[in-house]
Amino acid sequence: MGSSRITFDKWSDSYSDRMEHMRASAVRDLFAAASRSDIISLSGGMPDINKLPLDKVAKAASATITQEGIGALQYGSTDGRVQTKEVLIGLMSELGLRVKPEDMLITAGAQQALDLLGKIFINPGDVVITEGPTYVGALQAFSAYQPDVHAIDLDDEGIRTDLLEEELKRLGKGGAKFIYCIPNFQNPSGVTMSALRRRRLIELSHEYDVPIVEDDPYGRLRYEGGHMIPLRALDEDVIYLGTVSKVFAPGLRTGWMVAPRPILKKVNLAKQGTDLCGSALNQVLVEHYFNDTPWHKTLQKAVDAYRERRDAMLEALDEYFPPEATWTHPDGGFFIWVTLPPYVDTDQMLSVALDHGVTYVPGAGCFPDGRGKNCMRIAFCYEEPDNIREAIHRLAEVIDERLGMYRVFIAAGVLPDAKED
Amino acid sequence: MGSSRITFDKWSDSYSDRMEHMRASAVRDLFAAASRSDIISLSGGMPDINKLPLDKVAKAASATITQEGIGALQYGSTDGRVQTKEVLIGLMSELGLRVKPEDMLITAGAQQALDLLGKIFINPGDVVITEGPTYVGALQAFSAYQPDVHAIDLDDEGIRTDLLEEELKRLGKGGAKFIYCIPNFQNPSGVTMSALRRRRLIELSHEYDVPIVEDDPYGRLRYEGGHMIPLRALDEDVIYLGTVSKVFAPGLRTGWMVAPRPILKKVNLAKQGTDLCGSALNQVLVEHYFNDTPWHKTLQKAVDAYRERRDAMLEALDEYFPPEATWTHPDGGFFIWVTLPPYVDTDQMLSVALDHGVTYVPGAGCFPDGRGKNCMRIAFCYEEPDNIREAIHRLAEVIDERLGMYRVFIAAGVLPDAKED
Repeated sequence: MGSSRITFDKWSDSYSDRMEHMRASAVRDLFAAASRSDIISLSGGMPDINKLPLDKVAKAASATITQEGIGALQYGSTDGRVQTKEVLIGLMSELGLRVKPEDMLITAGAQQALDLLGKIFINPGDVVITEGPTYVGALQAFSAYQPDVHAIDLDDEGIRTDLLEEELKRLGKGGAKFIYCIPNFQNPSGVTMSALRRRRLIELSHEYDVPIVEDDPYGRLRYEGGHMIPLRALDEDVIYLGTVSKVFAPGLRTGWMVAPRPILKKVNLAKQGTDLCGSALNQVLVEHYFNDTPWHKTLQKAVDAYRERRDAMLEALDEYFPPEATWTHPDGGFFIWVTLPPYVDTDQMLSVALDHGVTYVPGAGCFPDGRGKNCMRIAFCYEEPDNIREAIHRLAEVIDERLGMYRVFIAAGVLPDAKED
Repeated sequence: MGSSRITFDKWSDSYSDRMEHMRASAVRDLFAAASRSDIISLSGGMPDINKLPLDKVAKAASATITQEGIGALQYGSTDGRVQTKEVLIGLMSELGLRVKPEDMLITAGAQQALDLLGKIFINPGDVVITEGPTYVGALQAFSAYQPDVHAIDLDDEGIRTDLLEEELKRLGKGGAKFIYCIPNFQNPSGVTMSALRRRRLIELSHEYDVPIVEDDPYGRLRYEGGHMIPLRALDEDVIYLGTVSKVFAPGLRTGWMVAPRPILKKVNLAKQGTDLCGSALNQVLVEHYFNDTPWHKTLQKAVDAYRERRDAMLEALDEYFPPEATWTHPDGGFFIWVTLPPYVDTDQMLSVALDHGVTYVPGAGCFPDGRGKNCMRIAFCYEEPDNIREAIHRLAEVIDERLGMYRVFIAAGVLPDAKED
């Protein structure tokens, strides 16, 4: 894979219609480039797991086998191990969520939950509502089921519920299959939904009979302020998605879904055909990690490091980025969203950035409809502060080069001044 | 889950059309029953992994972390680790398959490969050809994409290529999306495709432009005779599916797909949205197991045990089963397929069997079209020989009870004598 050599594809007429709508993830495509040693990657959403106590994790890995025996190596039930659910229920209770094992199902990362929700809900042409911008991987997961995705603008308080209401009114009761959102430190914008918006979102969900899917990978990665109450804690009809990827390790592909039981039953059915069951070994290791290691301390160290990196990025943005650029100021999570003047195309600019030794995620991939061309997602989660400063410096140079040309045009009155901040 | 309590489902109008076609797996449904201590299960296809050297696996599990470090815990590439591919390529080379890392992609068990193939190939109404009977999980995976599945009868030499040819002729060139088959010790029939049929199948695949999907979970579990050459070794256009589930452990959910590169590229794209990537930890553990433990010896012990169990089952069938029943005589794998007179309904009989303390898989679930009602799959892989004999004894009693009534009718000339062996 990854070869760009053109191969004659004699199966080209055989693929399903859905493949025409399926887009590659820029994040995945950048994976190879990001591993080049001269590149500083601001594109990936990889957690920094260097602070994991590897000796303890190794001991836990060994214990999965010695204590659990063949149970860790055999097929399991489709919805996951009860013991693992109990551990994850413990995690959720710290966020104010009260969940029973029967209300949840373990998935291969939260990504699989998105695929399964697409599978059980979406017919081709069905409307799905997301935030705009939204998580690239959600657009990818849903696209396999050929929905009509409507992305509702975000601002500093999260999804614009006034615009959402207009859209729902236009669509009518039950006019969308679900509203997908990431209320905490949203991917890619870094924005957190305010308490007021949360309540209004839930009201609208009931008023228009459209369930909410609450994706919460970053909720525990807060660098200042108090935790916000999850939507699911306000409304048991909310479908809640969690994952250990950002609080332990993504390599275990362990996520979960909390949902009303009738929905969960459909998800279970769909999951049977998808992978029979999740990895028992990974689930047992998750149990050991959260039961037997000082994970709160480990997570706190990671949060401290992330905070330092976010601060380094915000400072560097202030220092190096041109006045035409604006960006978000997240209280947690991994990402900052940068908006450049409308005449900049961040897709086109990416190859120049690569030449300058820096990567980011172009904004267009975070919208279903061509918006976001002048935006980018930059991640502060993975690189050390010095590298972040250097990367922002490099990126600022790339942007400045682009803007230089336009500034001349604008000064000459040829282009409108698109600065909007 | 698993509760049969009826819950009002206010989302019942929201589910996608594909959910109407999705059937629960009887195997999964029986999972709970099979764990009751008074039940001897002949329903599950769980490998017996009691012979795994747990101390060595525990050491390997610990080594995944100590040696690989955070690489075992981080996100990875969608197609899987090259090191894992190398190990699996080694396994395949022992079967006569020559494969490069670029020709394969690691999946969450072979089950995920089936889902991904459905995703990239099947539009609603597209024809997919399978053997009849076929693997329940394949029917489940494909059903999400709403194909029209045509199951071609098997006999002792595998798929009836004469019937397949008739069907392909009827459908015309490219008239089916693919032909799915399990050439070795087929699930559920236990039948192995003859060399002649293999060659004919490949000829037909090219003549009618329909690719072959070769699913080979059981190929290494041969109890007598020589290994058959895989279809993929005869034709590089064949899509080959493998898994470590039956040669190491299903709890690692590690399978793989070998396919022509254009197809693999589409699968990779579909997999991105499905789960981003597989579990790194599981892949590293697979590497350690096959590189650092005497797995050939371990597997040989399992093969010896399975052979003994198969023999015990065949002997018990001869001893206890009524003359109206026929069954297959597999050279390997996990399953025997029993055919009862056409007036017996094995679905209906299952609850009686459960009362008698034995489970099996009703045959109807192994066909897409209502056939197989008088058949059942019985597995000899998991129980010890004494239990197998007892289970067959119990099952024979259940069947005899059913037949007793019909025998009276038949003797009286009320029912046709449906014995066909």
